[in-house]
Amino acid sequence: MKRWDTVAIVGVGLIGGSIGLDLLRRRLARRVVGIGRRQGTLRTAKRIGAVSSTTLDLQKGVAEAELVVVCTPVGRIAADVRAAAAACPPGALITDAGSTKEAIVAELDGLAARRAGRLDDSVRFVGSHPLAGSEKNGPAAAVAGLFVDRTVIVTPAKATPAAAVSRVEEFWQALGARVVRMTAARHDAVVAAVSHVPHLVSSALAAATPEKLLPLAAGGWTDTTRIAAGDPELWTQIFRANRGRVLTVLARYEKVLASMRRALERGDGAALQRWLARAKRLRDALGS
Amino acid sequence: MKRWDTVAIVGVGLIGGSIGLDLLRRRLARRVVGIGRRQGTLRTAKRIGAVSSTTLDLQKGVAEAELVVVCTPVGRIAADVRAAAAACPPGALITDAGSTKEAIVAELDGLAARRAGRLDDSVRFVGSHPLAGSEKNGPAAAVAGLFVDRTVIVTPAKATPAAAVSRVEEFWQALGARVVRMTAARHDAVVAAVSHVPHLVSSALAAATPEKLLPLAAGGWTDTTRIAAGDPELWTQIFRANRGRVLTVLARYEKVLASMRRALERGDGAALQRWLARAKRLRDALGS
Repeated sequence: MKRWDTVAIVGVGLIGGSIGLDLLRRRLARRVVGIGRRQGTLRTAKRIGAVSSTTLDLQKGVAEAELVVVCTPVGRIAADVRAAAAACPPGALITDAGSTKEAIVAELDGLAARRAGRLDDSVRFVGSHPLAGSEKNGPAAAVAGLFVDRTVIVTPAKATPAAAVSRVEEFWQALGARVVRMTAARHDAVVAAVSHVPHLVSSALAAATPEKLLPLAAGGWTDTTRIAAGDPELWTQIFRANRGRVLTVLARYEKVLASMRRALERGDGAALQRWLARAKRLRDALGS
Repeated sequence: MKRWDTVAIVGVGLIGGSIGLDLLRRRLARRVVGIGRRQGTLRTAKRIGAVSSTTLDLQKGVAEAELVVVCTPVGRIAADVRAAAAACPPGALITDAGSTKEAIVAELDGLAARRAGRLDDSVRFVGSHPLAGSEKNGPAAAVAGLFVDRTVIVTPAKATPAAAVSRVEEFWQALGARVVRMTAARHDAVVAAVSHVPHLVSSALAAATPEKLLPLAAGGWTDTTRIAAGDPELWTQIFRANRGRVLTVLARYEKVLASMRRALERGDGAALQRWLARAKRLRDALGS
């Protein structure tokens, strides 16, 4: 297994912090530089052992990095990757952990770092998305082993050299993840269905519940609304970035829900039961 | 704390089985008779220690019962309570564990057992609903301590004598539950919002998901669809029994979801973020 010398993590929250924890605990990197915009967050990341040094200065932070992992919110990723590419050593590899991919990958396709007036295309970007987020945020939510047996989707562009893709895949595999490779467009369609629309559905349920009933909410409400506790600003960025696909999947969802409602309206228990049986079959296929 | 002599449990699934387990383990009853329609279920209930004896014959099973707890599916409860009332000793108390209450309580209001040609109104029914179900079913899913710190809603009718209500409330409290008393109508409105509509919302999400994407489903989908694994037949009975209220709450949900969709359609990130923030505030108010 490759041992990295210096890895820079831009954004040391739940995902970035968990990556750092494992890189250091598993001795997969000699040094992890944590880069952030808030001193408090960086201090927490250092205290829990997620990074070996910290800086507020992205340029300085990536100056010696063999690998840069950008874990900032979706709306900032492309800019942070460009800034890292301009300041990291030639031959460095950059990946991210964003929940949407198509816009980011398209914007960074053919990425070449511009330094001292010339282009250096030895710096490579390969998009990633670890399916390991939760409703929690910040480095205090970071946990060792977060990626073990979790899926990471890696989304190379057509022009991405195979060697760069392999190195990014090996990086995630070293953290215990199962890597799946697909196009950025396919990725965005998949996560619209299994992550983004579930978040809307869950949030609408929480938002539609009268507050005074909360003391009587039991397991069903609690499970179904868990992800509604996610950060509203981060999620708004995700929905904007994947708007078209989210709307397509949401239309399908609203149609199914309306069919179930109409079955109930006309007292058609058999039709309603067929929908519930279909839902159960799909849910049971997944396991707990 | 009162010790019961003989308690009969009609329907020894997750709820009935868990009640029996605690009655025997906590020595709250000398004897628990398990009554069911399938020999296999009764054998399992006996094997796990949820009942001390079993029978397929409801009349025989309740013949010596001081307390009868009817834990059959919603569509059968009223008939099972009537049958139990006709066969149990004078002065016996009957309760249930159904997820809907108004139709059942209305049908059983002023319950009087008819035996040997005369009416005996010493038998009392008080409706209950322990908010402790899950997507699992059957006596194998029964667990000791299921009701500890869980809410049980008790729904007396106007004519129910206070002493009978108190005895039923003490029964649940002895199992560790927190008892809340309200009318059956209020109960049905509450559970439409915190249980029945969440079940529809969750089931529609599972049913709308293309099966081939399941291997990529992560935590968000998994949590949000957990309750969709519930039994389709039982849930169809629940929806039929609480149809009007479910449709009212569902209309409110569909309206909120449509507002969120329109915010996304018109690219209004601020409006979308306000909805997500409202959802988060409500979800955070509950805790995990």
